[in-house]
Amino acid sequence: MISRLTEQIRIKRAPVVVGLDPNLSFVPEVLLKDAEEKVRSYADNPLAVELLGGDLHLAAAGEAVWNFGREIIDSVADLVPAVKPQSAMYEQFGIPGIIAYQKLVRYAQQKGLIVIGDVKRGDIGSTSEAYARAHLGRIKIGEGMHKAFDEDFATVNPYLGSDGIEPFVKVCNEEDKGIFVLVKTSNPSSGEFQDVLLESGEHVYETVGKKVAQWGEASMDGDYSNVGAVVGATYPQQAETLRELMPHTFILAPGYGAQGASAKDLSVFFNKDGLGAIVNSSRGIIAAHTKERYSSYGAADFGGAARAAAIDMIEDLRSAITNL
Amino acid sequence: MISRLTEQIRIKRAPVVVGLDPNLSFVPEVLLKDAEEKVRSYADNPLAVELLGGDLHLAAAGEAVWNFGREIIDSVADLVPAVKPQSAMYEQFGIPGIIAYQKLVRYAQQKGLIVIGDVKRGDIGSTSEAYARAHLGRIKIGEGMHKAFDEDFATVNPYLGSDGIEPFVKVCNEEDKGIFVLVKTSNPSSGEFQDVLLESGEHVYETVGKKVAQWGEASMDGDYSNVGAVVGATYPQQAETLRELMPHTFILAPGYGAQGASAKDLSVFFNKDGLGAIVNSSRGIIAAHTKERYSSYGAADFGGAARAAAIDMIEDLRSAITNL
Repeated sequence: MISRLTEQIRIKRAPVVVGLDPNLSFVPEVLLKDAEEKVRSYADNPLAVELLGGDLHLAAAGEAVWNFGREIIDSVADLVPAVKPQSAMYEQFGIPGIIAYQKLVRYAQQKGLIVIGDVKRGDIGSTSEAYARAHLGRIKIGEGMHKAFDEDFATVNPYLGSDGIEPFVKVCNEEDKGIFVLVKTSNPSSGEFQDVLLESGEHVYETVGKKVAQWGEASMDGDYSNVGAVVGATYPQQAETLRELMPHTFILAPGYGAQGASAKDLSVFFNKDGLGAIVNSSRGIIAAHTKERYSSYGAADFGGAARAAAIDMIEDLRSAITNL
Repeated sequence: MISRLTEQIRIKRAPVVVGLDPNLSFVPEVLLKDAEEKVRSYADNPLAVELLGGDLHLAAAGEAVWNFGREIIDSVADLVPAVKPQSAMYEQFGIPGIIAYQKLVRYAQQKGLIVIGDVKRGDIGSTSEAYARAHLGRIKIGEGMHKAFDEDFATVNPYLGSDGIEPFVKVCNEEDKGIFVLVKTSNPSSGEFQDVLLESGEHVYETVGKKVAQWGEASMDGDYSNVGAVVGATYPQQAETLRELMPHTFILAPGYGAQGASAKDLSVFFNKDGLGAIVNSSRGIIAAHTKERYSSYGAADFGGAARAAAIDMIEDLRSAITNL
């Protein structure tokens, strides 16, 4: 799967993933109003109401974020190789939110986009296996095999060690999928545990990074492994170290834009081949219509604003990264 | 919320939580057959089929694990204070699986049980806030506040540090809920990162444990904090250290039974008041009908087998723990 991602990055000259993290604070109100009207008709369908969990306000929110995400996808599909829906932002709307998540995964894939499910799952062996099946694989029911969410990549938390990761690697090999393992996250307090110095003289993020490189050896796909790493764009110094420790590991780098990282910070994330990383922007693109710079689009054309912001981000990265 | 849990443990004299981790390999086949028949009627309801994600085999599996879980709950509700549905085991069935998860959360609560949502979520600040709202809090839609999954406790992964945890603590205080933060997990490779020795002379799990105690100070509820810790029953030595480092932290201890820990291993998890920990058993109880010892119940009476196994586990713990 990583070779498909690198190919798409090459074709589009854009190592960019658009984060689909909808928040009602920036989803135009009219979408919620229209959704409320639509779901009102569900009241005549008791089974549908039961399946949605019984609260039609949540159903309206789910419908609104689905329509929001769909327009974002339509606006950027020709520009970027991938989108990254963030599970929490859908789970907060209950079942209807997760229905929206699933529909957006499928819609983005139909549009030729690669989908990184930002689910940050991870558990002990048998349970990680279920997460891997849920998000990247298949599940046996009776005599048939069935797909649940079927994203192309999933983000995974490494805190539980190898037996939490290996079931994902197995599924990556079986289904040609990929994962990005959290190594050094973009948030301010990520250093509390990730940066502590070990007796061995290295930091926790280095120990985790080395393990990621090692896990990745079991799932090579061209020059890179299907086992990637999450390294925050906000930590270029750690990224430089990690880039060396994990030469064949593709990096998913969140933190550009809203969280403060610039294109210049990002050059160390890339290899000399112009590959090796994909940079995420969520609010910087999908909430562009709320920013001064793109305010001329207005809330009604939030898709146009997102497109303009994506183009600006791509240009910014092209100017800073060699051989892109 | 932790005071409600300790009260229920006292009343039932059972520091036991039943893990609801359904796997079709031990769900009696007749449940899947009955479910297939039920969901066949959904075919006449295109909206329902769409909401379920379009695959009625997954819908049947979801219906089967809901009926399985409901019978387990009916069989143990008077014996134990809490159940712990494990999210992965429901996510693997897609939307229908998550519908089953939500229904089981609600059903268990109606039966007076406390529900620990074993979701192991965790992300950067704004996203952890969404997870906290999704699982323990409320979400604002228009002018109203709405609940998504509304478990009583959630398990949380600490790898991202304080700003991934604090949004959960805030919601715990607002809604009287609780969390259990992963500190030392029960799986064989948990030591890879959790046990590494730091330059400071302590191990990662100790650093995390101290932080859990510190986060917990902001959410005390009686003698214990709403911020608990997950410490595997399979690691009594680390538990002894952690019990001292976190005197007011309630411990959720998985790993009894199927994973190999005995009641004797568990005594160090408890304080002198006979409280301080709740021990999880999943397959040991819910798949008891597949074990030699309870085989006389047969698959048809899997609930009776689960009840017998729960009683045996409670007796076992009572014999090993002082002042229970």
